[in-house]
Amino acid sequence: MAPPREALTFPFSKATLIDPYLPSTNPTVTPFTSKPFVTLTYATSLDSSISLSPGIQTALSGPQSKAMTHYLRSKHDAILIGCGTAIADDPSLNCRIEGVGGYGGEGLQGQPRPVVLDPKVRWDADEWSKVVELAKDGRGKAPWVLVLEDYVRLVRREYRNALEGVGGKFVAMSSTTKDGWMDWNDILSVLAREGINSVMIEGGGTVITDLLSPRWLCLVDSVIVTIAPTWLGKESVIVIPDERRGEKGYKIPVGRLKEVHWVPLGEDVVLCGRPNAT
Amino acid sequence: MAPPREALTFPFSKATLIDPYLPSTNPTVTPFTSKPFVTLTYATSLDSSISLSPGIQTALSGPQSKAMTHYLRSKHDAILIGCGTAIADDPSLNCRIEGVGGYGGEGLQGQPRPVVLDPKVRWDADEWSKVVELAKDGRGKAPWVLVLEDYVRLVRREYRNALEGVGGKFVAMSSTTKDGWMDWNDILSVLAREGINSVMIEGGGTVITDLLSPRWLCLVDSVIVTIAPTWLGKESVIVIPDERRGEKGYKIPVGRLKEVHWVPLGEDVVLCGRPNAT
Ligand SMILES: NC(=O)c1ccc[n+]([C@@H]2O[C@H](COP(=O)([O-])OP(=O)(O)OC[C@H]3O[C@@H](n4cnc5c(N)ncnc54)[C@H](OP(=O)(O)O)[C@@H]3O)[C@@H](O)[C@H]2O)c1
Ligand SMILES: NC(=O)c1ccc[n+]([C@@H]2O[C@H](COP(=O)([O-])OP(=O)(O)OC[C@H]3O[C@@H](n4cnc5c(N)ncnc54)[C@H](OP(=O)(O)O)[C@@H]3O)[C@@H](O)[C@H]2O)c1
Repeated sequence: MAPPREALTFPFSKATLIDPYLPSTNPTVTPFTSKPFVTLTYATSLDSSISLSPGIQTALSGPQSKAMTHYLRSKHDAILIGCGTAIADDPSLNCRIEGVGGYGGEGLQGQPRPVVLDPKVRWDADEWSKVVELAKDGRGKAPWVLVLEDYVRLVRREYRNALEGVGGKFVAMSSTTKDGWMDWNDILSVLAREGINSVMIEGGGTVITDLLSPRWLCLVDSVIVTIAPTWLGKESVIVIPDERRGEKGYKIPVGRLKEVHWVPLGEDVVLCGRPNAT
Repeated sequence: MAPPREALTFPFSKATLIDPYLPSTNPTVTPFTSKPFVTLTYATSLDSSISLSPGIQTALSGPQSKAMTHYLRSKHDAILIGCGTAIADDPSLNCRIEGVGGYGGEGLQGQPRPVVLDPKVRWDADEWSKVVELAKDGRGKAPWVLVLEDYVRLVRREYRNALEGVGGKFVAMSSTTKDGWMDWNDILSVLAREGINSVMIEGGGTVITDLLSPRWLCLVDSVIVTIAPTWLGKESVIVIPDERRGEKGYKIPVGRLKEVHWVPLGEDVVLCGRPNAT
């Protein structure tokens, strides 16, 4: 099948710079491991905004960065977002790199599994949701939705039918953290149990901010951030993790990356690094 | 005179990448112009913080970025900061690049003029302030302090003596904007009148945020931002300009850079660009 016109390509010369941060070249994941390889990735403005406001399409990064995102997706078993993004953006969550399944390739080869954190069943996808339509068309995998056990009974029939109709499913999560959120250790164990060896966490603001806290950052293997040369200003969707205090109560940085590499890409720059365990 | 041990060097290979954004290679400034060439520069974390909190020394960017800042200073007639930074940091505000006056060179050649915006006389420098000591030692120029006319009488004798004793001065500013701030057109005209053809605006948070508003960004010729691969977290000194609304009240980006160039520098990246007039 010829790749459709919307298929993207990402130049080999740039890919080789980013590959060292991707799961394929990081064989830390052994069979029976309880944690997939985790890549945290997002596109940001200079003032740490990832969108002008929820639901406003924000042309933040350029076409080359978009192609890179799809290249990254082709290298992971799953991509994960929070329900805030699913609701605001109706995202496609598939991979459109030339040669993957649906874009010139066989079956669903190279297509990541979309995973949505929807603890209290807020998303309510239906048969017109992009991710459902793409799964129906054979251009993306059907989504898995992680829901808190107590809320599973609230899933509306249309939501369930739309998802299960294309091969998706709901996964009930039992335990939560003190503040009622899902524990990232549990989220990652569930994915590992389901055969996911690598997951790319893409957003939105709440998910990224949560993962950047010292408690969870140690679960992240690679960080890939695209920075666009723009300022979005106040009242945008901002990524600023909670503050952190060291001994004697002094404020200290929340996290830092090591093995850093900066890759200019069109008007943007891509930062690749690994969290520095502290 | 041999350069003292603390003199810094900035590699030629990197300097040539940044030079196109500096006043020396941008002869837009003709004699009798009312505005110096303006370079806006700051060092930031990934979450748009420029300091953990006012007065806490924050090792944000690495040694190469520090050398770059001093290289930039050597290329400008003046460097400007707000009194918040002067009070919190007791900054040196001189140039320590090898070969400038006081660091291997003659007199005060290559030393920028420190300019401090201190509208309501909050700084209160004295003879132990670093910038005063450096001026006394012949390693930096004496500062000029821009004060609102109505407040000039509040300048304490010690403050005046410390500054004027090393050749510094107070400049009274008459007009203000509606909200009582100095008008950047006036600030820049005053500098032009005093023979300053280029000024590097270095901080802190309030000054940078103010200049990034669409009203003033058009006065900026070059922007040079150093980004360090770290997150400082909430309650830091953050640079996020006020939001901007376009036609029909929709939120739009506050500003974007054109002619962008990214220069990796040690662990950091340096973004060079010019504001895109909108
Ligand atoms: N620039 C980029 O790279 C990028 C990428 C993706 C999205 N975005 C933008 O991000 C914005 C959406 O961000 P957002 O903060 O509103 O939404 P979000 O992060 O996508 O989703 C947040 C929601 O996910 C659930 N959630 C997250 N972490 C959880 C955990 N550990 N346990 C349980 N539930 C968890 C919570 O749902 P409940 O509230 O129901 O509990 C939370 O409110 C959109 O504007 C989108 O365009 C930007
Ligand atoms: N990372 C970096 O590149 C960098 C560089 C420099 C400083 N910093 C950090 O920035 C922090 C200080 O920032 P800050 O926001 O507190 O202070 P600041 O921006 O240095 O100074 C702010 C003050 O300057 C005066 N001012 C600014 N713009 C003015 C205008 N247009 N007209 C009249 N007055 C004006 C006002 O004084 P009044 O309040 O008296 O009216 C204002 O409060 C420190 O922590 C410092 O370390 C970081």
